[in-house]
Amino acid sequence: MSAFAYDKLLALSKNIALMNSIHCLLDWDQETYMPKDAIELRSQQSEIMASLIHKQKTGKAFAKALSSLIAIETGEILPSDLSTPQIAALKQWRRDYLRNIKLPNAFVKQFAKTTSASTHAWQTAKEHNDFKAFAPHLEKIVILSRKKADILGFSEHPYDALLDLYEPDMKTSFLSPLFCKLKHELTQLLKDIIVKPPFTEDFLYRHCPAHSQMTFAHTLLHKMGFHKSSSRLDVSSHPFCNGMQPKDTRMTTRIHPENMMSNIGAVMHEGGHGLYNMNLPIEHYGSPLCEQVSLGIDESQSRWWETLVGQSKPFWQFFFPLLQKEFPEQFGNVLLDDFYPAINSVKPGLIRIDADEVTYNLHIIVRFEIEKGLMEGNLKVKDIPDIWNEKMREYLGVSPEFDGQGCLQDIHWSLGFIGYFPTYTLGNLYSVQFFEAFEKAHSNWKERVAQGSLDFIRDWLRENIHKHGRQFSSEELCRRVTGKELSHEPYVKYLTNKYRQLYYL
Amino acid sequence: MSAFAYDKLLALSKNIALMNSIHCLLDWDQETYMPKDAIELRSQQSEIMASLIHKQKTGKAFAKALSSLIAIETGEILPSDLSTPQIAALKQWRRDYLRNIKLPNAFVKQFAKTTSASTHAWQTAKEHNDFKAFAPHLEKIVILSRKKADILGFSEHPYDALLDLYEPDMKTSFLSPLFCKLKHELTQLLKDIIVKPPFTEDFLYRHCPAHSQMTFAHTLLHKMGFHKSSSRLDVSSHPFCNGMQPKDTRMTTRIHPENMMSNIGAVMHEGGHGLYNMNLPIEHYGSPLCEQVSLGIDESQSRWWETLVGQSKPFWQFFFPLLQKEFPEQFGNVLLDDFYPAINSVKPGLIRIDADEVTYNLHIIVRFEIEKGLMEGNLKVKDIPDIWNEKMREYLGVSPEFDGQGCLQDIHWSLGFIGYFPTYTLGNLYSVQFFEAFEKAHSNWKERVAQGSLDFIRDWLRENIHKHGRQFSSEELCRRVTGKELSHEPYVKYLTNKYRQLYYL
Repeated sequence: MSAFAYDKLLALSKNIALMNSIHCLLDWDQETYMPKDAIELRSQQSEIMASLIHKQKTGKAFAKALSSLIAIETGEILPSDLSTPQIAALKQWRRDYLRNIKLPNAFVKQFAKTTSASTHAWQTAKEHNDFKAFAPHLEKIVILSRKKADILGFSEHPYDALLDLYEPDMKTSFLSPLFCKLKHELTQLLKDIIVKPPFTEDFLYRHCPAHSQMTFAHTLLHKMGFHKSSSRLDVSSHPFCNGMQPKDTRMTTRIHPENMMSNIGAVMHEGGHGLYNMNLPIEHYGSPLCEQVSLGIDESQSRWWETLVGQSKPFWQFFFPLLQKEFPEQFGNVLLDDFYPAINSVKPGLIRIDADEVTYNLHIIVRFEIEKGLMEGNLKVKDIPDIWNEKMREYLGVSPEFDGQGCLQDIHWSLGFIGYFPTYTLGNLYSVQFFEAFEKAHSNWKERVAQGSLDFIRDWLRENIHKHGRQFSSEELCRRVTGKELSHEPYVKYLTNKYRQLYYL
Repeated sequence: MSAFAYDKLLALSKNIALMNSIHCLLDWDQETYMPKDAIELRSQQSEIMASLIHKQKTGKAFAKALSSLIAIETGEILPSDLSTPQIAALKQWRRDYLRNIKLPNAFVKQFAKTTSASTHAWQTAKEHNDFKAFAPHLEKIVILSRKKADILGFSEHPYDALLDLYEPDMKTSFLSPLFCKLKHELTQLLKDIIVKPPFTEDFLYRHCPAHSQMTFAHTLLHKMGFHKSSSRLDVSSHPFCNGMQPKDTRMTTRIHPENMMSNIGAVMHEGGHGLYNMNLPIEHYGSPLCEQVSLGIDESQSRWWETLVGQSKPFWQFFFPLLQKEFPEQFGNVLLDDFYPAINSVKPGLIRIDADEVTYNLHIIVRFEIEKGLMEGNLKVKDIPDIWNEKMREYLGVSPEFDGQGCLQDIHWSLGFIGYFPTYTLGNLYSVQFFEAFEKAHSNWKERVAQGSLDFIRDWLRENIHKHGRQFSSEELCRRVTGKELSHEPYVKYLTNKYRQLYYL
């Protein structure tokens, strides 16, 4: 009886997942191959798909199927013969459903209209370094975001309601001290580093033709475990990974002929997201058991490959000779002992997406503190540029001359994504805490990676993280994998060890 | 009042058009960039879109909006203040609606299931030249197609109901004598030609690298009037044009390094479809006024560019030097006076898609006669191979040794597309009849084309054909443009003139 009801819910939910995957294809195409004049049509197509998906998610059929298995009000599981993963899936389905029905259509439309206008305004404002032109839009977004928090509900802090959209159950009361301690440690470490002489790295900016860069990118992805029969790599202005389902993983990278590492970093990063997507249990497609836990966990996977593996010495012990083979003129006369420090150069800068491992999270903390202030009402939109510049000076020792390199650099706020930034740092923290557990299981990982083996890493991630889908919350997953609650300590320890050696601290 | 009702209908219809365009993107992606393991997901995505579209097309909201403007039963236009194009659009909307509601869901599903299985069976049967393995599938399709004709209704011949799906209002009683006369003329012409010495054409098969072929293809499309901001050219195993809407025209070609003309032919052909799509009046997007009249008219546009322009002497007077520049080793020592006959070589062969202008329609007539026999019940599926081979021998003087080169060569029947083939020949006939009218308006077209001008051709097509969408039926359009009913005579006259000169008949 309950098997039948479960299958019925799964079938409805699979339909929604398929519609979502169609929506994903529209996005992927828009960023890769769509002729640019088709943009108006594309936004109309997207709107239709979004509306159809919303209708299905909040419709009577779905509610009926769900409530035959779990009490919508109380969360009580109704049948007694469900498996543990099925019960976990039902809880996630209910959680999503409750959120989906909370936001009234009128509000969703108003929010979409506001962010659509503000994204346009942001683009122009960024170009002209004109925060004042963007401020009225951002003010509207802040007001709507506070309203959104009220509608979604929260028990401690309005920011929690927004965090929850990207990192379920995350609380401001947890983040604030975590980020505070992290900031303290990072600024300390940074102070020790910046007095040291910089590494030679001019060879990183030698011209590397796009075609050869793509060849090397495919080599990397192949070694990571991707096959062309179920994945793709294309070029777009901003790299992304669009996982339509485990058998269709689409990644993109950017190619700057004068900055080859920017491509490699992007490929490893998106490849990390891609492996997570590829290793989700396809037999549960349509259910939360075939979905990523959270943006933070997803980011832990991308940063794992981009930084913990892709910026490690053992990795380049194997791959540097291959890089030299692909680019003999550019790297033939470069030593690994020079290459490795160069790709790990710590240089406080203005731009988040160009930041190194040590400074990256300080960029996030600046944003987090501003967002928190905005949601609390302690900070006015008009004061953002001053606060931004002050915090940048304080934490990173650099301060932008223009807002385009400062508080206007990211698209997120214009899209209404307040509460999103912290997931980047959470991803970094999760990745290292997971990596500690991985190191315990594979104490010889450095030797194996140096010999070109990456399969065992992918297998470990699949077994410990990917295959569970959303069966566990991020917190549960973290405890399960690492035995501990998320903390800044493993990350700080990792950075300190790595950069102590690199910079002879 | 009626303006409001019309806009409401248009809005609903535009939604359907947008959903159709999403469905089109799924198809385009499947043939171009989709990783192959995603095929199962893709068919599920397609099924969902098809079902959503069908629901919208046959739903209450659409019926209500439509019936407020035109009586569904009688076709009477209800408001008195509509424009002539609006009235024409309403008639087409009603026509489509009546057809869409006729086929019961259960039948549509059964048909889809049958053709899905038969397409698989056909692929294997073709590979193994095993018609017997395909026959039971085709028998089912014939039975279902007869049933389909009964459901859709017809007054004279069951085949009419199927023809109507691709070429609205076309009748077997019109086609039979038309094709009979055409066959007579073509077989005569062919007899005169095949006794003549063949043209030298070995240089057409010189190796031309894929990359240079694509460069030349883009040159052609650019000259035809395409811009990359609203169109694309990609590679697929079978060339096609997927017109999502006028601002997003996607064409594909095939690249055989040893057969450069196969690419050029495909590009000009799909470019012809593409221009039709691109020049539809976008202000009517969603209404029949922004749709192609019929497959026959659509094919007239592709064949116009592929053959009437693309295989003409003036065209190559301009483009041959460009081709020589792109392929100096392959064509540097070839004379235009040798190239032009070579690309117009008449050689009766077994394969439809490789056929020249003279023999192409004989291939279609073979298929038409067989389809007609099947629908009348005079011909049994099991007898197809014998009949096929006999007709091929009689009309073309060649006969296949294996069914893979014979009655199993085309995918159409396995897809259930009975009634589709005649539109290819109708396209050829329309194209030449239209071209006669074009020649009257532009008697100096040869000089202008020889100087590299193609814009005036595109403009003529847009003004006379494209911009009307489905305002006129094919018959009305043909009379409007050419002053006459469709006939085989212009086509035969065109071929006779052209090949008399080429072969010194």
